[in-house]
Amino acid sequence: MLDPAKLSDIEAIIAAQGAMRLIGVEVVRVERGETEFAVNFRPELSQQNGFFHAGIVSTLVDTAGGCAGVTAMPPGAGVLTVEFKLNLLAPADGERIVARAEVVKSGRTLTITQGRVFVYKNGVETLCALMQQTLISMPAKTVREPDSSK
Amino acid sequence: MLDPAKLSDIEAIIAAQGAMRLIGVEVVRVERGETEFAVNFRPELSQQNGFFHAGIVSTLVDTAGGCAGVTAMPPGAGVLTVEFKLNLLAPADGERIVARAEVVKSGRTLTITQGRVFVYKNGVETLCALMQQTLISMPAKTVREPDSSK
Amino acid sequence: MLDPAKLSDIEAIIAAQGAMRLIGVEVVRVERGETEFAVNFRPELSQQNGFFHAGIVSTLVDTAGGCAGVTAMPPGAGVLTVEFKLNLLAPADGERIVARAEVVKSGRTLTITQGRVFVYKNGVETLCALMQQTLISMPAKTVREPDSSK
Amino acid sequence: MLDPAKLSDIEAIIAAQGAMRLIGVEVVRVERGETEFAVNFRPELSQQNGFFHAGIVSTLVDTAGGCAGVTAMPPGAGVLTVEFKLNLLAPADGERIVARAEVVKSGRTLTITQGRVFVYKNGVETLCALMQQTLISMPAKTVREPDSSK
Repeated sequence: MLDPAKLSDIEAIIAAQGAMRLIGVEVVRVERGETEFAVNFRPELSQQNGFFHAGIVSTLVDTAGGCAGVTAMPPGAGVLTVEFKLNLLAPADGERIVARAEVVKSGRTLTITQGRVFVYKNGVETLCALMQQTLISMPAKTVREPDSSK
Repeated sequence: MLDPAKLSDIEAIIAAQGAMRLIGVEVVRVERGETEFAVNFRPELSQQNGFFHAGIVSTLVDTAGGCAGVTAMPPGAGVLTVEFKLNLLAPADGERIVARAEVVKSGRTLTITQGRVFVYKNGVETLCALMQQTLISMPAKTVREPDSSK
Repeated sequence: MLDPAKLSDIEAIIAAQGAMRLIGVEVVRVERGETEFAVNFRPELSQQNGFFHAGIVSTLVDTAGGCAGVTAMPPGAGVLTVEFKLNLLAPADGERIVARAEVVKSGRTLTITQGRVFVYKNGVETLCALMQQTLISMPAKTVREPDSSK
Repeated sequence: MLDPAKLSDIEAIIAAQGAMRLIGVEVVRVERGETEFAVNFRPELSQQNGFFHAGIVSTLVDTAGGCAGVTAMPPGAGVLTVEFKLNLLAPADGERIVARAEVVKSGRTLTITQGRVFVYKNGVETLCALMQQTLISMPAKTVREPDSSK
């Protein structure tokens, strides 16, 4: 079960991100260590063939992974993405993409997640991207200067 | 020197991508094997701390890398991103981000690029992201079905 | 069920790799789209703290992933690793490491796999590494010159 | 200039790694933020076509990157690899491979490096691999339990 304080942390993060509103990201499901976020197709999200742009796919799954990490941390803690690696398996050709991310390992400093993105077209689901991600946790209130020596 | 036909290939790709217009991507420089693309800050591109969202950073550098790959291919050929890996080195806190990508190796099937993203704030440049990317070339006219067996 | 010709392809690959004999890699299980390879600890495989060296972990899981890819291809076809990304989640501190790899997507040209490495110590299993990998298939007999234009 | 204490840190790390002796890794050059390590070919390091095994290439460049990270840290501090991503650009077909790694960003907690591996055959140098790596620094004396909560 997800702590309600944690869900409101995540809703607050998403609401505070201009890029999430620009893209139109929808929080479908949040559980402890797992998230599911979605975006419906609009021509403004396309690449040159009319598919979802890979950048939209990566934004969605990176955010889903980051929020999955947040669900596994103390209330008020934040995360920053250290790095992620994304394989694009098939064109994101469809009406809707859904990213599902889960925490594989949650450590004191680093959290590792994996994510999958599915595209839906005429009722058919196709796996279109695969992500592996490293997050770093930020104590509450220090999100602005994560590692000032860097 | 870049073939003018190649530059118009790239301008056509960017112009045809709704996501590039949505984000406001600017083509700064295109040479053979190298590109430089930029985005100016707007609140719609932010994450919760008011920095550029990591998804915008990744979209910019993935696209810069893909277009760098296009410059090294026969006219009319397209590319798809197979995968990329992005390290986020510092918050993208500033007025403008610029991605510089270059082809490290261009093969018959696969092309490997690297990219760096810099953020500018009050005249100070900070390296904020580092990318390594694999592209697959698509013969002219077959971009829509890159690998139909997949 | 795995085609017996495929299993003998894999056994032949492993037997032909000096590095696999040097490290002492054991083929535990091979099924269609899945492999499980193991290595027992010896001081020659260590890093400075007496754990398995990350290089041994990466060699094992890269090979397990490559062979998982082979199981999903026509007989006689080979693969080369295009790239892989490995997260090291915990020290590989134990008597034995086991890599389990599986094909996520098998395409005409490219195959994507994921792998996990577990370390065993005093009967306790710990997930110590996570891999995401891209393979390229080589038609039979052309393994030596995979992409001569590269 | 490299602090002599730092060079002896690195020599001690390499000497203490059974895997480095097994493979036959040679420290060619160590400077502040940069390393160059090499391995000469022996049949025990091969894959099935007689090239250097990708695992040997990855072990070499991961270690070169890790030691580059050590050169940028306080004396006595250690590093662990959080993750690395390796693109294999060409078969490692030759008499010797040399990995050159450099620190791109050194932070209080995390250090990012890049590396390239070159293979030499009959006097010809070929770039055969490209790496991007994340390291985490360990205070002196605590290397054994890097993140006990993980």
